[in-house]
Amino acid sequence: MQFHLNGFQPGDPDIADPAARVQVSGATGVLPEEVDVLIVGCGPAGLTLAAQLAQFPEIKTCIVEQKPDRLLVGQADGIACRTMEMFYAYGFSERVLKEAYWVNETTFWKPDERTPEKITRSGRVQDVEDGLSEFPHVILNQARIHDCFLDVMRKSPAKLEPYYSRRVLDLHVDPAADATDHAVTVRLERVDAANAGKIEMIRARYVVGCDGARSTVRKSIGRGLHGDSANHAWGVMDVLAVTDFPDIRFKSLIQSAKDGSLLIIPREGGYMVRIYVELAKLDVGERVANRNIAADDVIAKAQRILKPHTLEVKEIAWWSVYEIGQRLTDKFDDVPEAEIDTRLPRIFIAGDACHTHSPKAGQGMNVSMQDAFNLGWKLAAVLRKQCAPSLLHSYSAERQAVAKELIDFDREWAGILASAAKAGGTDAAKTQDYFVQHGRYTAGTATHYRPSVLTGTATHQHLAEGLVVGKRFHSAPVIRLADAKPVHLGHAAQADGRFRIYAFSPVEDPAAAGSAIRALCNFLADSRKSPIRRYTPSSADIDNVIDLRGVFQQDHRELAVEAMPPLLLPSKGRYGLYDYEKMFCPDFKNGQDVFAMRGIDRKAGCIVVVRPDQYVASVLPLDDFAGLTSYFDAFMLPMN
Amino acid sequence: MQFHLNGFQPGDPDIADPAARVQVSGATGVLPEEVDVLIVGCGPAGLTLAAQLAQFPEIKTCIVEQKPDRLLVGQADGIACRTMEMFYAYGFSERVLKEAYWVNETTFWKPDERTPEKITRSGRVQDVEDGLSEFPHVILNQARIHDCFLDVMRKSPAKLEPYYSRRVLDLHVDPAADATDHAVTVRLERVDAANAGKIEMIRARYVVGCDGARSTVRKSIGRGLHGDSANHAWGVMDVLAVTDFPDIRFKSLIQSAKDGSLLIIPREGGYMVRIYVELAKLDVGERVANRNIAADDVIAKAQRILKPHTLEVKEIAWWSVYEIGQRLTDKFDDVPEAEIDTRLPRIFIAGDACHTHSPKAGQGMNVSMQDAFNLGWKLAAVLRKQCAPSLLHSYSAERQAVAKELIDFDREWAGILASAAKAGGTDAAKTQDYFVQHGRYTAGTATHYRPSVLTGTATHQHLAEGLVVGKRFHSAPVIRLADAKPVHLGHAAQADGRFRIYAFSPVEDPAAAGSAIRALCNFLADSRKSPIRRYTPSSADIDNVIDLRGVFQQDHRELAVEAMPPLLLPSKGRYGLYDYEKMFCPDFKNGQDVFAMRGIDRKAGCIVVVRPDQYVASVLPLDDFAGLTSYFDAFMLPMN
Repeated sequence: MQFHLNGFQPGDPDIADPAARVQVSGATGVLPEEVDVLIVGCGPAGLTLAAQLAQFPEIKTCIVEQKPDRLLVGQADGIACRTMEMFYAYGFSERVLKEAYWVNETTFWKPDERTPEKITRSGRVQDVEDGLSEFPHVILNQARIHDCFLDVMRKSPAKLEPYYSRRVLDLHVDPAADATDHAVTVRLERVDAANAGKIEMIRARYVVGCDGARSTVRKSIGRGLHGDSANHAWGVMDVLAVTDFPDIRFKSLIQSAKDGSLLIIPREGGYMVRIYVELAKLDVGERVANRNIAADDVIAKAQRILKPHTLEVKEIAWWSVYEIGQRLTDKFDDVPEAEIDTRLPRIFIAGDACHTHSPKAGQGMNVSMQDAFNLGWKLAAVLRKQCAPSLLHSYSAERQAVAKELIDFDREWAGILASAAKAGGTDAAKTQDYFVQHGRYTAGTATHYRPSVLTGTATHQHLAEGLVVGKRFHSAPVIRLADAKPVHLGHAAQADGRFRIYAFSPVEDPAAAGSAIRALCNFLADSRKSPIRRYTPSSADIDNVIDLRGVFQQDHRELAVEAMPPLLLPSKGRYGLYDYEKMFCPDFKNGQDVFAMRGIDRKAGCIVVVRPDQYVASVLPLDDFAGLTSYFDAFMLPMN
Repeated sequence: MQFHLNGFQPGDPDIADPAARVQVSGATGVLPEEVDVLIVGCGPAGLTLAAQLAQFPEIKTCIVEQKPDRLLVGQADGIACRTMEMFYAYGFSERVLKEAYWVNETTFWKPDERTPEKITRSGRVQDVEDGLSEFPHVILNQARIHDCFLDVMRKSPAKLEPYYSRRVLDLHVDPAADATDHAVTVRLERVDAANAGKIEMIRARYVVGCDGARSTVRKSIGRGLHGDSANHAWGVMDVLAVTDFPDIRFKSLIQSAKDGSLLIIPREGGYMVRIYVELAKLDVGERVANRNIAADDVIAKAQRILKPHTLEVKEIAWWSVYEIGQRLTDKFDDVPEAEIDTRLPRIFIAGDACHTHSPKAGQGMNVSMQDAFNLGWKLAAVLRKQCAPSLLHSYSAERQAVAKELIDFDREWAGILASAAKAGGTDAAKTQDYFVQHGRYTAGTATHYRPSVLTGTATHQHLAEGLVVGKRFHSAPVIRLADAKPVHLGHAAQADGRFRIYAFSPVEDPAAAGSAIRALCNFLADSRKSPIRRYTPSSADIDNVIDLRGVFQQDHRELAVEAMPPLLLPSKGRYGLYDYEKMFCPDFKNGQDVFAMRGIDRKAGCIVVVRPDQYVASVLPLDDFAGLTSYFDAFMLPMN
């Protein structure tokens, strides 16, 4: 898709008329008085969370935003492979794949050795290592990601729309309230001209602050962002420009001899490009805003760095200056560390409200959305009475550790850029090495949750070497048994709050009377200890809470769907129709054997439990029914 | 995607609320008095044409439909690979891929040899041969295809909406009119209750009858559908059913010993299935409608054929009975064969209005859309004064021949099914052989236009063995030079009315001063004889009429985008931005060398000219500037 040729236009590029590209967004009327969850802020974290909760019509969610309308331009644009995997679960990855720029290779430029006032290409690497994810690393305006989530929300069972022009004034928690009470009272002020100054009150069971680095919600729970402001001022601009710099359509990291660094991020539509420009070192405590830097200053600096190449900026779609600051808060909810055992969290913060990153590492938006994806299913499970509220402690525990790791990485990365620049660009090789080495961080696949009530230990990891406990389920291509469709095993996961159990069969005939898969299915279908029986409401489909999938070693033409254990061909819905999409075989034709690709023990097989947010919760022997039972019993509430 | 579990619901399955799934469609108010093109009928042909013409805001199009609203259920569902390629050009293939059932394998069942009253599986084949197309063969409700086209129309520059509840009464052509006059006057009657009986008049330069087998437009030009009604009555039903027939999620062709044939077409959403059931042989001239066949009769027959398997139908989403009839009209426009040299066509017919097929061959909807795709760009080119009106003769010439070929195939196929059934299903092996052999017909890739003013001869075919003159451009994976993106070469083609020239470079360095690619680019950019110079309006972008693409033999890392001929890095739009998407290299990493895959002469290279409807128009030596010039000069009108 090509667009923005004759000027940047916000909204859906499939729509020819620029005036019709942006759909009306926003709820009308006053806020509801009482909700299960109040989300503050319509950024990536808030919208990811809202879109998740909107899948459950029984959960009452409200999302408010101080700005008067949806975002149209600017801000973040990097979308990691891991985020694309999540977008698949939300149902809009294909739209993003179509519209976004794909980061295929990254090039590196440094001062020419003989004429250092000119830059020269020093390296070129593949951006994402082979096989890291089934999705590419892409770049798309944050506003379009918002649009995708708003679309999911609008089409969801809850038909959720944000309330714009609402500013949170304060939050009050009733300390005497029960766990299930609407214990948080929030006061908001309307900031649209027609209603300016009107105060609204809303009572919520839970409040989630996705309200950015200056989060009111964070301040209300007495937390702050801590860390350095590294005092590097940078400019960023989305431009339509004419240049003879040959790598303008590659992600390019450029270090000049005397004028600092520049990062090129090509953008969607074929013509636009984002340019990050290193501007100046700030004094201690100084804010970049005080320097009165103009767009022309940013352009002039970029032109100097790019020499001998020209850069003629024709239109600036968006620009900003900022100082790098890696900052983090110590806990992502309202419960002090010392009170975890005695108090339940009611207020959470996510995204920039609890961590900020250097934009150039491409992390901020991705980590924020993963925060919300982690929190969303937990809130839903507690509100739907599937899990005990104590589960909610795991949100801060898991995500604060991840944010810290990423900020450490981010700081190191920013430092390398800065020091390389200081050294006159001579560290280009080091920069490139570091870039390659940390590809998994930037792809978002390095996140590794530590053992907890939700995440098992590595005891049985040898049964599935490539499906690491605590890391995201690494998908692989398979063939669906019942219709021979080539699909991705991980795409069984939708953002529907369900756990998945992947049962990888040993090499034996899975249909045989005594097969390990059959024994597992019999246990899950019939035993009083079965987590499926214990935790699935009797009125719901059998896969409503825990979704079992079978993976076999044989070619799909060798197996008979009708001979398999009934739990893998479940009868569902008001008509009792069979669900034929539970069983998979290796894609031998394309040489892609999931057992080999993910290091599954062929002799023993195994059980892989995957959380609703796609993280591997546990790897267990196929006959470890007790292990399976105790995993779910640790945090789930019996339904029947 | 899974949907329809608890009952069939029309519309967009991404929308949770069934009541919100169907967007309002249709223009309000009265018809315009004067248009360039009046399209009669909102079926696949009419909508394909409307969506094409809607891309050109300067063309005034009106589309009318007798029914009161969009289609919601039933009718055709098979989408051939070739059609998916066209959907890509229209911009919605990814939606169809996501929602549709994919036909991966087809199974064959026949009476068991020992107990012939039971059916048994006799064979299983891959549905589409490897490498035939980059798209699969899929199945999706015709109504959803309509939705996609309606969406394209709504978002297009022309913002086209159909006028529903309009019945064409008659057409009158002014015989004295000039070629460019609004010579056709059409009288229509409104058939909605509020306006019933109101008469509207519309004058059009061209009228296209896409109004089905009983086409009023066809009758108005004195043409009829000729051919046999094969007197086989069939039932068809879309059902939600519980069955122990194991191949219910495979396309399955079942021949019973005594009860005739049955065809299973699994449908989108994972639960619904279409079943075609052979009912009875009709008497000569008898219509199936007279038999008073009920849905229960169709179900009962299906149950008998499927024995020993059960079939419990829980819900019928749609059903119908019909008689097979392969019929064809002799010409697809209003000009008698004898008057072709002296008269220009003004009225066309497309789709079922000029040819009908047995539904089970899965051809009808696909051929209809290809009719419209063939006609659409021609009408646009004439109306935009790019081509002489005589070009319009080629529509009937090309499409009538294709329809005849397909009807011959279709008749043969239906006969085989019938005779196999008559022979007690013993011809199952023959059926299977025939099925495999004719896969290219059903995939829609067998269409082969004969040499004409639009289609060259095979003189230079040896330069590109795999890009057959007269057949659709067979895409292949490549790497885009400027950003290393893996793309499909054929996906350069959009439904935008443009011609494409693919220049395949010889093995030499394409950047060299004397390279063949450079010589071609110099000719195209500078020569007064260049078709790009001759036929592109001076105010338009250089690729507005003819879109040149370069394909090189080197790895993309070995070539420098900035060293290439300027015509391959054209400056476009109000800002003169460079278009970086014109150059491609083989995808060596994935072992996919387009030169090897499509049999391009590595030493000589070649020029491949592709029509706006994706058919290969000509293969020429790289230095055959005269050949290139004369190809376009034969039917295009100079602009400058």
